[in-house]
Parts: sequence; C-alpha cells; structure tokens
Amino acid sequence: MPTRLTNFFLRTLREDPSDAEVASHKLLVRAGYIRRQAPGVFAWLPLGLRVKAKIERIVREEMEAAGAHEVHFPALLPKEPYELTNRWVEYGDALFRLQDRKGADYLLAPTHEEAFTLLVKDLYSSYKDLPLTIFQIQDKYRDEARPRAGLLRGREFTMKDAYSFDVTDAGLDASYQAQRDAYERIFTRLGLEYVIVKADAGAMGGSKSEEFLHPTPVGEDTFVRSAGGYAANVEAFETVVPEAVPFDGLPEALVLDSPNTPTIQTLVDLANERYPRPDGRAWTAADTLKNVVLALVHPDGNREVVVVGLPGDREVEMKRVEVAFAPAEVDAAGDADFARHPGLVKGYIGPWSPEGAVLGEESATGIRYLVDPRVADGTEWITGANLPEKHVFGLVAGRDFVADGVIEAADVRPGDPAPDGSGPVELARGMEIGHVFQLGRKYAEVLGLKVLDENGKLATVTMGSYGIGVTRILAIIAEDHHDDKGLVWPASVAPFDVHVVATGKDQAAFDAAEVIVAELEAAGREVLFDDRPKLSPGVKFADAELLGVPKIVIAGRGVADGVVEVWDRATGERTQVPLDGVVAALS
Amino acid sequence: MPTRLTNFFLRTLREDPSDAEVASHKLLVRAGYIRRQAPGVFAWLPLGLRVKAKIERIVREEMEAAGAHEVHFPALLPKEPYELTNRWVEYGDALFRLQDRKGADYLLAPTHEEAFTLLVKDLYSSYKDLPLTIFQIQDKYRDEARPRAGLLRGREFTMKDAYSFDVTDAGLDASYQAQRDAYERIFTRLGLEYVIVKADAGAMGGSKSEEFLHPTPVGEDTFVRSAGGYAANVEAFETVVPEAVPFDGLPEALVLDSPNTPTIQTLVDLANERYPRPDGRAWTAADTLKNVVLALVHPDGNREVVVVGLPGDREVEMKRVEVAFAPAEVDAAGDADFARHPGLVKGYIGPWSPEGAVLGEESATGIRYLVDPRVADGTEWITGANLPEKHVFGLVAGRDFVADGVIEAADVRPGDPAPDGSGPVELARGMEIGHVFQLGRKYAEVLGLKVLDENGKLATVTMGSYGIGVTRILAIIAEDHHDDKGLVWPASVAPFDVHVVATGKDQAAFDAAEVIVAELEAAGREVLFDDRPKLSPGVKFADAELLGVPKIVIAGRGVADGVVEVWDRATGERTQVPLDGVVAALS
Repeated sequence: MPTRLTNFFLRTLREDPSDAEVASHKLLVRAGYIRRQAPGVFAWLPLGLRVKAKIERIVREEMEAAGAHEVHFPALLPKEPYELTNRWVEYGDALFRLQDRKGADYLLAPTHEEAFTLLVKDLYSSYKDLPLTIFQIQDKYRDEARPRAGLLRGREFTMKDAYSFDVTDAGLDASYQAQRDAYERIFTRLGLEYVIVKADAGAMGGSKSEEFLHPTPVGEDTFVRSAGGYAANVEAFETVVPEAVPFDGLPEALVLDSPNTPTIQTLVDLANERYPRPDGRAWTAADTLKNVVLALVHPDGNREVVVVGLPGDREVEMKRVEVAFAPAEVDAAGDADFARHPGLVKGYIGPWSPEGAVLGEESATGIRYLVDPRVADGTEWITGANLPEKHVFGLVAGRDFVADGVIEAADVRPGDPAPDGSGPVELARGMEIGHVFQLGRKYAEVLGLKVLDENGKLATVTMGSYGIGVTRILAIIAEDHHDDKGLVWPASVAPFDVHVVATGKDQAAFDAAEVIVAELEAAGREVLFDDRPKLSPGVKFADAELLGVPKIVIAGRGVADGVVEVWDRATGERTQVPLDGVVAALS
Repeated sequence: MPTRLTNFFLRTLREDPSDAEVASHKLLVRAGYIRRQAPGVFAWLPLGLRVKAKIERIVREEMEAAGAHEVHFPALLPKEPYELTNRWVEYGDALFRLQDRKGADYLLAPTHEEAFTLLVKDLYSSYKDLPLTIFQIQDKYRDEARPRAGLLRGREFTMKDAYSFDVTDAGLDASYQAQRDAYERIFTRLGLEYVIVKADAGAMGGSKSEEFLHPTPVGEDTFVRSAGGYAANVEAFETVVPEAVPFDGLPEALVLDSPNTPTIQTLVDLANERYPRPDGRAWTAADTLKNVVLALVHPDGNREVVVVGLPGDREVEMKRVEVAFAPAEVDAAGDADFARHPGLVKGYIGPWSPEGAVLGEESATGIRYLVDPRVADGTEWITGANLPEKHVFGLVAGRDFVADGVIEAADVRPGDPAPDGSGPVELARGMEIGHVFQLGRKYAEVLGLKVLDENGKLATVTMGSYGIGVTRILAIIAEDHHDDKGLVWPASVAPFDVHVVATGKDQAAFDAAEVIVAELEAAGREVLFDDRPKLSPGVKFADAELLGVPKIVIAGRGVADGVVEVWDRATGERTQVPLDGVVAALS
C-alpha cells in the first residue's frame, strides 16, 4: 500500500523554526520529520521514524553479523549500581534523577554499563560462557547544560550501546576489534565519512578508546590528523618529547631584574633589550616557561592548587587539562587560593622541586608542580624567580628543578609533529558518531563480575563498551545531504525510495500515476504518492524537494504523450521516461 | 544465520524467582526472556525481545491497515500540558515526576493525550486535514503502588497508544469503530480470547469507552456478562430501574421504635417480630433502605459528606462508587465528619429531601442524599427515622422524600438482570488487554485544539484514545500457553519457528542437524539450534520444553537410520520423519 499524501500525517513548513541554527535541525522540522517537545527533546513524526528505522536496521544487521545479541533495558534504573561505580555523583547535573512513590532513588540512564555488568553477573559464571557481546538500541537521557543543534545534542536520544565481556585481555582486544570493524561497515553502508581518532576514555575510565568522528564544520570536536595517517582527538594528542640534553657545559642560572613584565611579550621584549643572548639570536616566547596556577576540585570536595609549567608560546587548553586531571574538575585559581599560598608570587611564579623552593624566599612546597612534555631534562628557560619583579634566566629542567610530573596541558597547533612520526598535523572539526572503549576490569571489579577461569579460579571479567548515536547520525546525514531546497537523502536511509507526484488538472495524469505507483510497489519499492488534487505543481515540487526522497516521478502533461519525468533529487537531472519504463528506469 | 545455543545469550534457570506469583512471571524469568531490574521494571533478553517484536509487528500492521500513522514521542515530557488537563495532579503518586538541571518540572508519560493533542494543534488547522489517527508503540511509566505479577502490572511497560482527531461526532464514531475493529483483528491474530465490555472512562474523561478484557483467573478486573451478549465491567454496569409505582393508595409512613438494631439483620428480625406485614409475607433485607455515609475529597481539597441510600440486601461496591464520584476521592466517614453533622444519627440515618429534614428533630440539610436506582418513585422502605432508636416503616420514595440524585453504588450480583434485557448476568475475572475511549472534546477544549470547519468557523476537535498493552499481552499469552514443563508459544508470536536439537555423542547427528537447520532457514523458517556438545539429551529437552518454541526437531540416534523426530510442543506428539522430509513436515 503506498503512502498517500492525501491522508498522510504531514505538514511541511515554509519557515525555519526560530530556535534552529543548523541545517539538519531546520530542515528536519520544516519537512515534518521531527517536532520539538522540550529543549533537546523531540517527537518523531512518520517520515522521521522511517529514516530512523532504516538506520537502526543497518546498525542491528551489523551488530548481529558481528555476533552481538540484542537485549533491551529500561531507561529507568535504580541508583545503587551507579552509586557503586560513582557515576551517580560523577555525572553531576547531566544525570536525570528522580524518586518513586516510596522515596527510592532512580535515574534515567545515560548509558548502561552498570546494568549490563550486573545482568551478566546475574546469569553467567564460567569462562565457557564468554566471550559475549550484547547490545541494545534504546532511548537514553542526558540533561545537557546546553542542548543544541536539534538532534545533534539532545537530552533524549537513541543510541546503540554494546558491551563486551571477556576473561582475557586478548579476548577483549578481539571483541573490541569486532565492534570496531562493525562500526566501519555501518558507517560505510550509511555513506558517512569517518576518521578513527585516539580518544581519552574520560569519565568512562578504562584503557583504550577510539572515537569515530565525522568531519563536518558543525562538529563540536576538534581533532588532529597527519597526512601520514595519524588521528586523535585534541584531548588524546600526545606531544612529542624532545631528547634530554646533557647538563655538562650548561651555564648557571641567573636571577635578573624584570620589572613591569606582566605578559610573556613584555618579558621577551625586556629580555631582548636588557639581557640579549651572547650569540645574538633573539629571545622568543618559546624560550620562556609560563607557570599557570589552577585549582582542582576533587570528587571528595577537596580543593587543590597546582601549578603547570609550559612554554610561553603555548596556551593551556582546558579540554586537555580537564582530561588530564579527571575525575577532578579544573577551576581557575582565585584570590583565596593565592592567599592560602603566599609563596606564589603573582606574575613571577617559577618552578620548584619536591624538596622545596628552588628560588625565592617563600617556599611553595606542598603545591604540585607539573610540566609540559617539552620541558625535558636539560632544557633552559627564562621563568619567574618566585620573587617580585625578578625572573631567572638559564634555569635548567632536571638540574635546577624537578617537576612532580608531566602533563599534556598545552594546546595543539597545526604543524606540531604527530607522535607516531607521520609528519606534521592539521586540525579539523568533527562530530562524534561512534565510540569504542576498552573499559577493562573497572566496572567488573566494582560490581563483582567474576567467572571461574580454566583453572577453576575466580577471574574478574574485562569489558568493552561501544556506542553509536543513532539519532545524531540521522541529523549528520541530513547535515551532509541537503541543499537550499531541502533534504537529499541517500538511498540507504531515505524514508521512501520513490516520490510519485501527480500534477495538473488532467485526470489521466492521476490515473497514470496510480498505475506507476502500483507497478513500483509490486517491484518492491517504497513509494510516497502525492495524490493531492487541486494543488499547484509548484507547491508539490517544493514539497518533494523539501522531503528529499532520492527519486521523484512526475506524472503531468507529458502523460498525454505517454511519458513521465524522472527527477533525481541529488543531481537535479530530469529525464523523460515512457510510462511503461518507469520501474526499469528506477531499478 | 541460525541462532546457535553455543553462543546465544541465554541462561535457563531451574528455580522460580522468589518474587514470582503467576506462571508467566515465573516462566519468562526461568526461560531467560526477561530479567527484573527494579520492582515492576524489567530488562528484555534476546528471546523476550523477539516475542515482543512479533507482537508489535502484528499491532503495527493492523494499525497501518486501519489507516493510522506511526509517530514516536519521548517518555520525558514537560509538566505544563499535563497541568492544563489537571492530570499532573489527578495522577497522584502514580506519576513519575522529575526536574531538570534548571528546576523545570517534567514527567515520564503514563499516556500521551496531551502531547498528541498539542502536536495536531501545532501542525493542523483545517477540517480538510481530518480525520486523522496517529499511534505509537512506546515505553510508558506508571508508579504503581503495588507492581505485581511480572509484566502483568509493571511500572515501565510498552503500549501501543493511538489517538483520533475528528471534527464531527459521526467522524469520531467512525474513527472509534476503525480502531475497535483493528483491535478485534489484532487479538484474533494473537489467538487471544477477548470480551468487549462497556467501561467507565474514569480519569480519562469522555463519553464512550469499551475495554477488551481477556477472561483469565489471574485477571485483576471483574466483569459482568449475560448469555444474551451483554458485557460490561463492574464499574460500568447499569442497574435496571424498576417502574415507578403510583402513590395512590400507599399507606402513610409510620415511625416506630426499633431499639438494638445495629445491623440490617437485627432490624429485619425486629420488624418481623414486632411489626409483621398485614399480608403475612416476611420482611427481608431488600425491604430496608440502608443509608451509608461517605466522605468525598474533591480535587480542590474540599471534604464533603454525602449519604447514599441503597437496598439493605446490597453492599456498597467501592470501585463503582469511586467511578461515580470521580474525580473526587472517596473516603470512609470518620468521627469528625459525624461531629460536623449532628443531624446524622448513627444507626438510625434516614433519607431527607432537598427542602430539609423529612423526619427527625435535627435537619441534615446541606448534605447531598443520593440513592440507588432501585429506590424508584413509589417504592416503600423501612429505614432510619433520623431519631435515636426509631425507624420509619412504609416511607415512600418520591412522596415522603426526594433524593438529590441517583448513583450506581451497589454491588453487582450473579443473576442481576442485564440492562439491555438480554437476561441475568454472571461475574467473571478478566485482564484488560485493550481500551478504546471516545474522549470527546475534553482535551481539545482545554488545550485549544480547534480547526476551521466547512463554514470557515473554528470548531473544537473531538478525539478518541486507544490503547493496547503490548508487554501485558505478552505475559497473558504466556499465562494462557504453558504447562508444567514451560512455555508453549503459539506460532504467531513464538521467538523461533523451530528448535533443532542435536543430541548424543555421534557427530553424524550434529552434521545432520546442521543440514536440516540450513534447509529450514532456506525455507524461510526462523531456527534456534541447540548445537551444544557434551550436554545430556535430558538437559536439552528440558530446555526446549522450557523455552516453548512450537516445533522441536530432535536429531539423535535415529539419524543412523535416516530419521529425526519432530516434536509438537503443544500436543506433545512426536513423529519420526525422514531426514529429507523435515522441511515438508514443518510447512
């Protein structure tokens, strides 16, 4: 049975919704695919539901081909397991929490690691039961601070989430690879360009993690890639560490006056003016060591002040710092923090060693001092002397101070070398469409998922977690496939295969269209039939362009001459086809 | 690709879950179809998900055949529309409520009348757009006070809910009938016995409402039916009103002493002893008029005392009273209520008229007095005289008192006449599996859903609401189709068509099973293949019986002689079939 526009539930709109910024949001609303219910919460109208079902089918088929079994969990889950893993707290405001009539705490699950872990614990007990990968396609909830861009960042969204369970690390590697391969097949079938980037596991914990990013200017993520094949998201980019330089022959550090040097540039200018290099090369910002004071708020509420040293020509990149310090939250240091640490001389902060102050009268001992990987042993720096209006020149890392640790805090820039030696990197915008994690034993440990191994001993299971954002993918496809007239669906996910339009006042055109629709349906094609009488061809064509079905058949005046037009939505090409040749032309 | 038990996610259990009372709950858990997550909240395991998908497919097909269009709403919805219809309050503790990070109120929708109404208001504006019926298959939430019986009464459950929109009452009748017909087809395809009973619309408001009840001893509802075809749920049963009797010639009422008559029986005994009827017939409880004091708590919090008069041989049935007084809640009258109304003489309460007290020194004016339909004009009663230790004999309804209204408060009993004249009724237990409502204009009125009618005037839309409990139906099918060994699925919803079991130590049996499985799959059958090595035939057969796939093929020792056994799970019949005849035998 074809879907007829005379009685289909559809209303196309001429105006963009006022809250829409990106094309997918505007067009999906205007073309009657989705409708907003609350910020970041949408209802699916018939056309949208059809596209979503097609994406889900592709995902499901590839999951099953990869040996994963489908289950379905409730969105409403009890608090306790999420308390054990600390996600009840760590998720912060992003978790929808509620109580039932008895006052018991529940949440709307953002992902289901805990529930899947407990299910396997509940049912399985032997290594013989493993490996196992189970998945669901399910509606998830995240109370985003700034839901935006329609389906691209919603508060309710459909995800395919899969979880793998293995006894051995090699098993986890294999399960991870199977999901990773399935993701490649899924995105290929969906015609979605993707880049696999090394990712930080973030709040999920675990060891190995890769993101599938779709390069797009509307993307929220910046990622790094080299022509030689390296790719990582900015958080996971690893700075190339310079070779250590021997201390022999390095001159001693000198403390020098440096009044009125509130910025790196003023410091460099002063250095070049008052203290030029003997060899005549100019000092640059890269010769200075900038020390940035940050405050960490640990999960237990404790506030810790840390100092991060990085070359003066680099900025601290908050995304990278946040990942490096997770699960602590990173805050700017305020007056109160400085007051508690009088050893921090604002504008003249320098490094120090665990043993105590290197320079300066007041020791800053007790504060962790961390450095960028470029601050390798033997590198010389102009930096604060921990004394008002004084800097130190020629301070040597590893000789004059020893940091408490190394941290990836600095921004990544085009031209930085890729860590795998594959050349300089460039930066690009992308949107996460999939994520594969090796969770390792973290969840199984906390929730007690153990099985008997081959030797009859209890072994903690190692897990993976694999997610694809179904509704986000739908929006990204719309983002990639549209023009100024409307949506242009690729055939794999189009709501219908063919959109047949009967136009004009001649009943013969409508009758011919009926025949063509019947023939197309008999040939297994899904047909949307614009059988609305009394509408101008212009209105019907505009709707067809807006809806974006890949092939449009127009039965109009040409029917009298035995022809219809076949219109390719993507190319705009229109071809005259004899009435009895439509099925062949579209197969 | 067949599903192989060697790597399927399944664990059958030998023990019933400790919290399970009914067979469907026990068996669905033991056979690995569902798993409890919280009270009334379940996860769906692969087998359960397959059965659920088959039920959903049947429901979807019949909805589409009835011209309904599928949409999908979020479970999470904002409060405001539910406030306008007052359901935010009326649902009481049964509504899951929550707040987002900004403190905005949300709910997990128990049904979606408000959201669908607003969607249509949002998109449609003309009578030409109607009629329209849209539906979804979606997970709903209700915070039941006593979730019970597994899926039969859960707090999260899957429903198909449909809503119709029409301009005219006749249109609504047609849309209602189309859904009602679709429900009949759905239940017939599912092999589910059903009785369509008149129902009260309850909290949904509206005018006409019918329930589809499945007769079952585990049912929560009592319904009434006659051999002549009448059926109603107890709340909707209408008492046959006796003909009014002319007052002419009826004797005057007499107030008589009646000490120590705390119960109807003691009153009847006293009447027969002290005040026998002149014609010698004995007084019975049916001759007395019992006056029951109730307290109503109105939605605005106001507490009202009412008195309900009904024949002394009947009991007040709370379900019926609650429906009659909805949306007020009904409470027992307490000492404080009596204290506020000193005219109510406990044990001797009688009727009165709107004009004031009929009898008694203290007037009970201001209290509504409602009567059972049997208290017709001209009927004579023994009842309280509103005076201590006194009753009145021969008090005539309509002559000596006029009630403020009629109420269906009395219980329904086997043998009561059906209101349509189709004979005496019997009572039976049933479980609601579907519900069709004519909501009328209530929601459209409150939410402002109007369209331009043929005359260009704004007309309020009239609506219907139609629900089927998908997960409940699954449980009811399991309830109906099981034996002491396990589940016995009907073919229409079975998770697989055929369960092939390879047994024994002979590789030939496993090889033969592989061939049969491949042939069955090639013939389009869905196959579950028990290819587990080293398990005893007894364990495999027990699992097959527990899982309940309709046809079981056993490839064992017979393979050497060229035969397998085909076992019908429902009848228990086992037939020997040649190896190359299995597909034919199962088609």
